[in-house]
Amino acid sequence: METLNGLKRTHYCGDLRESNINEEVVLMGWVQKKRNLGGLVFVDLRDRSGLCQIIFDTDVNAEAFAKAEKLGSEYVVAVKGKVAERSSKNPNMPTGDIEVFATELKILNKSETPPIYIKDDDNVSEELRLKYRYLDLRKPSMQKNLMLRSRVAGIVRNYLTENNFCEIETPFLIKPTPEGARDYLVPSRVNEGKFYALPQSPQLFKQLLMVSGMDRYFQIVKCFRDEDLRADRQPEFTQIDCEMSFVEEEDVRAIMEKMIQRIFKEVLNVEVTLPLPVMPYSEAMERYGSDKPDTRFGYELTNISDIVANCGFGVFANATKKGMSVRGINVEGKAEEFTKKQIGKLEDHAKTYKAKGLAWMKVGANREVTSPIAKFFTEEEMTAILDRMNAKEGDLLLFVADKDSVVFDALGQVRLEVARRLGLLNNNEYKMLWVTEFPLFEEDEETGRFIAKHHPFTSPIDEDLDKLESKDKASLRAKAYDIVINGYEVGGGSVRIFNSDVQKRMFSALGLSDEEAYEKFGFLLDAFKYGTPPHAGIAFGLDRLIMILAGTTNIKDVIAFPKNQSAVCPMTNAPAVADEDQLKELSIKLDLEDKE
Amino acid sequence: METLNGLKRTHYCGDLRESNINEEVVLMGWVQKKRNLGGLVFVDLRDRSGLCQIIFDTDVNAEAFAKAEKLGSEYVVAVKGKVAERSSKNPNMPTGDIEVFATELKILNKSETPPIYIKDDDNVSEELRLKYRYLDLRKPSMQKNLMLRSRVAGIVRNYLTENNFCEIETPFLIKPTPEGARDYLVPSRVNEGKFYALPQSPQLFKQLLMVSGMDRYFQIVKCFRDEDLRADRQPEFTQIDCEMSFVEEEDVRAIMEKMIQRIFKEVLNVEVTLPLPVMPYSEAMERYGSDKPDTRFGYELTNISDIVANCGFGVFANATKKGMSVRGINVEGKAEEFTKKQIGKLEDHAKTYKAKGLAWMKVGANREVTSPIAKFFTEEEMTAILDRMNAKEGDLLLFVADKDSVVFDALGQVRLEVARRLGLLNNNEYKMLWVTEFPLFEEDEETGRFIAKHHPFTSPIDEDLDKLESKDKASLRAKAYDIVINGYEVGGGSVRIFNSDVQKRMFSALGLSDEEAYEKFGFLLDAFKYGTPPHAGIAFGLDRLIMILAGTTNIKDVIAFPKNQSAVCPMTNAPAVADEDQLKELSIKLDLEDKE
Repeated sequence: METLNGLKRTHYCGDLRESNINEEVVLMGWVQKKRNLGGLVFVDLRDRSGLCQIIFDTDVNAEAFAKAEKLGSEYVVAVKGKVAERSSKNPNMPTGDIEVFATELKILNKSETPPIYIKDDDNVSEELRLKYRYLDLRKPSMQKNLMLRSRVAGIVRNYLTENNFCEIETPFLIKPTPEGARDYLVPSRVNEGKFYALPQSPQLFKQLLMVSGMDRYFQIVKCFRDEDLRADRQPEFTQIDCEMSFVEEEDVRAIMEKMIQRIFKEVLNVEVTLPLPVMPYSEAMERYGSDKPDTRFGYELTNISDIVANCGFGVFANATKKGMSVRGINVEGKAEEFTKKQIGKLEDHAKTYKAKGLAWMKVGANREVTSPIAKFFTEEEMTAILDRMNAKEGDLLLFVADKDSVVFDALGQVRLEVARRLGLLNNNEYKMLWVTEFPLFEEDEETGRFIAKHHPFTSPIDEDLDKLESKDKASLRAKAYDIVINGYEVGGGSVRIFNSDVQKRMFSALGLSDEEAYEKFGFLLDAFKYGTPPHAGIAFGLDRLIMILAGTTNIKDVIAFPKNQSAVCPMTNAPAVADEDQLKELSIKLDLEDKE
Repeated sequence: METLNGLKRTHYCGDLRESNINEEVVLMGWVQKKRNLGGLVFVDLRDRSGLCQIIFDTDVNAEAFAKAEKLGSEYVVAVKGKVAERSSKNPNMPTGDIEVFATELKILNKSETPPIYIKDDDNVSEELRLKYRYLDLRKPSMQKNLMLRSRVAGIVRNYLTENNFCEIETPFLIKPTPEGARDYLVPSRVNEGKFYALPQSPQLFKQLLMVSGMDRYFQIVKCFRDEDLRADRQPEFTQIDCEMSFVEEEDVRAIMEKMIQRIFKEVLNVEVTLPLPVMPYSEAMERYGSDKPDTRFGYELTNISDIVANCGFGVFANATKKGMSVRGINVEGKAEEFTKKQIGKLEDHAKTYKAKGLAWMKVGANREVTSPIAKFFTEEEMTAILDRMNAKEGDLLLFVADKDSVVFDALGQVRLEVARRLGLLNNNEYKMLWVTEFPLFEEDEETGRFIAKHHPFTSPIDEDLDKLESKDKASLRAKAYDIVINGYEVGGGSVRIFNSDVQKRMFSALGLSDEEAYEKFGFLLDAFKYGTPPHAGIAFGLDRLIMILAGTTNIKDVIAFPKNQSAVCPMTNAPAVADEDQLKELSIKLDLEDKE
């Protein structure tokens, strides 16, 4: 193996163009491919920027040629050479107009045969990709994603700094809060028997920074939640976390949508028109069955409960009698594209979201309806349904009857599934909106208790403030807002309560006694006594934003070293068994008995 | 309390100047001071940017005047008014040329009397400052420090990005490594009985990113060490972490010193001349008794062992006979400034660094020496000492005799203490240098084993590579480098081993069997097989860099929410007792018995 010994790289491989012809260059990188052809050795040399073709010719330099013959895949080399116009140009390659005739070759390191291919379209298992992540990250797509992520973080930081935001680091070792998602705990050695928690978000600290007059705070920061993992969830995730003083909801939205606009312009050259549409939560649910509607396509929900209240179809009639609802979507013009079997698949999909079934009607010529349930309706009822659904020949109508929460969820998901199957989800189209006026509380399904939908520091809407003590908690609306892109919640925030009395009433509405509230959040209630400004904030999920910008649906594609579904890193085998002595120092021991 | 109700701030308080006269402005902030004077109410309004004087005049607006009379300290207000030239200008205030006549006042929040004053020169205890951190952070000096920190991070990110570095987030939940400092552990819920560790640095991941071809990586990132705290240490601290491929030591130094140059220019308008001086470790120890020499002043160490080898002063003679050394510093021209008592204090200082004593000589007219030990030397010896020490009338000479490590440490510290007492440490002067060629190994004082001085991935100097298997491990030098500013180690790094064979030899030199090495770092050894580029890196301590730039010696002054010396946050009372059920979920229980 050779050393650089003072040799300096002059260019990245992928940057060479016709303008470099006749220059002497020094490139360094990995051997992507080597071919012997017509007495020459051709090497595709790869670095972060791309590929460049190198030619070793014994007439140019015999020693380099001899060495080049021994090169293997993924060998690390430094090449000195002269850029020439390529004899047979390759228009599919950014550097396809040139090639480099090598005058010197240093083999800096060898490589065994890699266990996974270094190309984007390999088909190895995710587990293997994660085990050999350092090789997986050699793939152009992965390198592009990581560079995109770095670039977006840079755009965000520059934008926020220009707008007087100050990046402030908040602590990672904080107080456990037995609220919301499960904390990761960190035993304290010095304070025996006590634990830190890793932050689920810097929420309390950013609010305290507003109390401290820091005025505008942001941080791109890791957060942690010990929840069961799903495909798009990781134990640690990254937030763009922001908080502003002396502002109202509209101010936060205005400044943040400009940031999103800039990101899409600079990264994708996509123009986002501002202001973004604003849709109250209730409207989003009624129209899309979702608080994060994908508005790239229609098929909006329509309520037909009143029409079918007394119809002969028991499922519909009984549902409406119980105060539930019957709603449908019109998959316009696509009746022919769904066979009975395919509609069955849609029904299965609806059932995974707790619907009991999915009723359907196909509309033929003269609005003649084909449907297993058509016979249950009078002609008047059917006409009313078709009118309400705005049905025309060739339409497919799909209905769910249940309590609202199930109808919205199931029909909203069927709506998405239909669009997926019809190929309507154009990844190069970006539809964004704000969803606002979220419920302040939601009912915990297990306990029946009301919990904060956003978090307990979210301000109610002014006109709902007086309802804080009422029984009708479900009707209270919050000054909360989410930004939704193509059906993904990319960010969310709220105007905060900044008055200690209102904060106390909020804790009380959540069933916390004064003592409990003080035990958990006493420092915040204390802080609020000493002149707290009105403030509001928002947090964006950076991982999800990058996913959208990178056009991937796998969150692991935008994280350098993610965990698998078992929260394990297959590369390092973290987590691992700890040293007995260290546990002793931490005043803890394992408690595995009843689990073995 | 009133709400903003659409009112928008137009300016920050501290930004108003004569050019704003006659403008209508809206300011928002805190009442720093209120005075009633001549039928007017004067308020100093404060925000992050500074102060501005507001005048409430019943003739301008009676309602605002009436409200203003009720304002208290730290009330939060919004003021609309007109900027006017101030009648009695205040040259000590950036906004001293203007004042604002209020036409509208909104009281946004009240404040109780704060438990600490909102001014820089308060004298409250650190514990109280930390308990009410949200008030402590209202102080102009603290806000300035946090804004400085944000700004420096921005300069660093822009500089590194311009130089092709890509910011990549590495994981926080990693595999525990029973090496080096103590890890913070995080019990895994899903993987019963196993633990993650919080990273002490992203070392392994950044090296793997080089294996993956990411070429140039950086990250401004939190790191964690569960060590006993000292004044300048926190359980969590922030690093500017960098790694580069296809470079040698000189390349890293060149690119990084330019970054430091830019920071000092942009933040302090200080010109740093490049390249910075480079001093091998051995020279730094010989001349300054320190591997992080403060080169703002002289008083360098001088070795007189050969002169005193056979002298009549037993302490010196015996030391040299045992192979130890006798070294001194010449505090030039300052003999008169140190009384015997003060020299006694210096001796006490030397003793805290394990010296057995501090010998001294004062040089008078005609080089007549006043010293309790003068009588032990022959005239020749004394002349030789004075010549070697370059002694002149008025000089104070201080000597320590002991093994080199103690002499260097004690005399190096006495040198600093002397400079401190003489007021030579000018905070507006910045002396920087690189210290290089550190020892590769150091002996663990307890076990006598050799451990890696930097870390086990540091490359030996080429010519010392063959000594890896020798007994003389102390003589091996590393391709390691620290950047030192005014006696602080601000950053340090090394060229890494990038060859799996050399890495194995290194582990073996550290006493790790192949199995142990593989158990701990197998994934790195594996990775090295598949084409690892030459790479090198560095990490800067951001907290310490900001301390130097902010001119403070207390690390807590540059961290928003630090822990106290017991690793406790006095504001939130973290760490805290955890929920029994949660511990059960984590398969751990407390183990306090034998400690209670």
